[in-house]
Amino acid sequence: MPTLVLIRHGQSAWNLENRFTGWWDVDVTEKGAEEARAAGRLLAEKGLDFDLCFTSLQTRAIKTLNLVLEEMGRLWLPVEKDWHLNERHYGGLTGLDKAETAAKHGDDQVKIWRRSFDIPPPPMEPGSAFDLSKDRRYAGIAIPSTESLKDTIARVLPYWESRIAPELKAGKRVVISAHGNSLRALVKHLSGISDAEIASLEIPTGQPIVYELDDALTATDRYYLSER
Amino acid sequence: MPTLVLIRHGQSAWNLENRFTGWWDVDVTEKGAEEARAAGRLLAEKGLDFDLCFTSLQTRAIKTLNLVLEEMGRLWLPVEKDWHLNERHYGGLTGLDKAETAAKHGDDQVKIWRRSFDIPPPPMEPGSAFDLSKDRRYAGIAIPSTESLKDTIARVLPYWESRIAPELKAGKRVVISAHGNSLRALVKHLSGISDAEIASLEIPTGQPIVYELDDALTATDRYYLSER
Repeated sequence: MPTLVLIRHGQSAWNLENRFTGWWDVDVTEKGAEEARAAGRLLAEKGLDFDLCFTSLQTRAIKTLNLVLEEMGRLWLPVEKDWHLNERHYGGLTGLDKAETAAKHGDDQVKIWRRSFDIPPPPMEPGSAFDLSKDRRYAGIAIPSTESLKDTIARVLPYWESRIAPELKAGKRVVISAHGNSLRALVKHLSGISDAEIASLEIPTGQPIVYELDDALTATDRYYLSER
Repeated sequence: MPTLVLIRHGQSAWNLENRFTGWWDVDVTEKGAEEARAAGRLLAEKGLDFDLCFTSLQTRAIKTLNLVLEEMGRLWLPVEKDWHLNERHYGGLTGLDKAETAAKHGDDQVKIWRRSFDIPPPPMEPGSAFDLSKDRRYAGIAIPSTESLKDTIARVLPYWESRIAPELKAGKRVVISAHGNSLRALVKHLSGISDAEIASLEIPTGQPIVYELDDALTATDRYYLSER
């Protein structure tokens, strides 16, 4: 039976400060690092193990994965890092305080940007302090100027199909350390959640989500490991 | 000009306890972790940067690399982990205290095992507490029962030629985080050091060694980054 575990990175500095983060490369806090270590210990205690790991190009997800693997004695596992697993790009909202943004644009507008399925926030302005076009980690990649959740799903799923699903079908046990919205993309796909419902599905930080899958990678169960 | 930096892992628990380690998976000490972070800060300060990283399957080298990359803001770089870069296998000496071993077998014998080029220590006994044949990270690999430095070189260099040298020739900037003897293998090859001299060449922990190479990967200079 294929094993798949999803982990959202531990608390980041901007989760704590309540700022829109997106592709900006914010580190985990000490609390976030401890969430990651606790996830690693829980996985080891429950006897979960892996053959292959996937993560984004963002420090908070990579560091979370490294801390999980360290606690499991599995730092030697192969890790593939890819921008397709990055967080949703928050466009012009990147770096803004969520409360200030609500005060400026109104709660309803911010709720639409945060929780609609297919309405992206305004694009990032060229020359923004949060512009990543000079960051060489994204050389050769068409960095989005903004993304709706639908846009995020549209770049996560081809990566899932081409890189992750074949490994699971070949019997590899896989852990994915990623972000709220790149993981929503996978949960929507695997659990068949509707467009209307997926944006409000909360994915807590540092909580291993276990998928039981059949050989065709259809989900037969999904649960938080901490609840078993 | 190809860039190559070699780093021996920071101090390990058994470096500190003066025990033969070899393939046994000992972690770095807090001092070793700090050596690794300092190496990362030094690399960033001196403007060194990388495209690709190589390390062994051993925690102390992987963790050193992760700490270096974290300090450099480069956790997102690709990392290839391979057993060919593992430390020399110390055979039956694995786990033994170096002073006790000298008291038992004599200083001269221990010096031969530690510093001869082609005389391996006695093989590890089957069923030893340090036997790794059940460790799944080495599944499918013919784990040596012991290695001379010559044996170590004989498995490091084919990996260098097949995996690392082509990346350097393609213009990639490479960092290798590995072990005293797997790095001796590379230094011997790149700097043309004789069989008689290589075993006594000390490679300090956590000190980035920079190689300047020409396009044919012949070394034109080798230095400790801390001395420039």
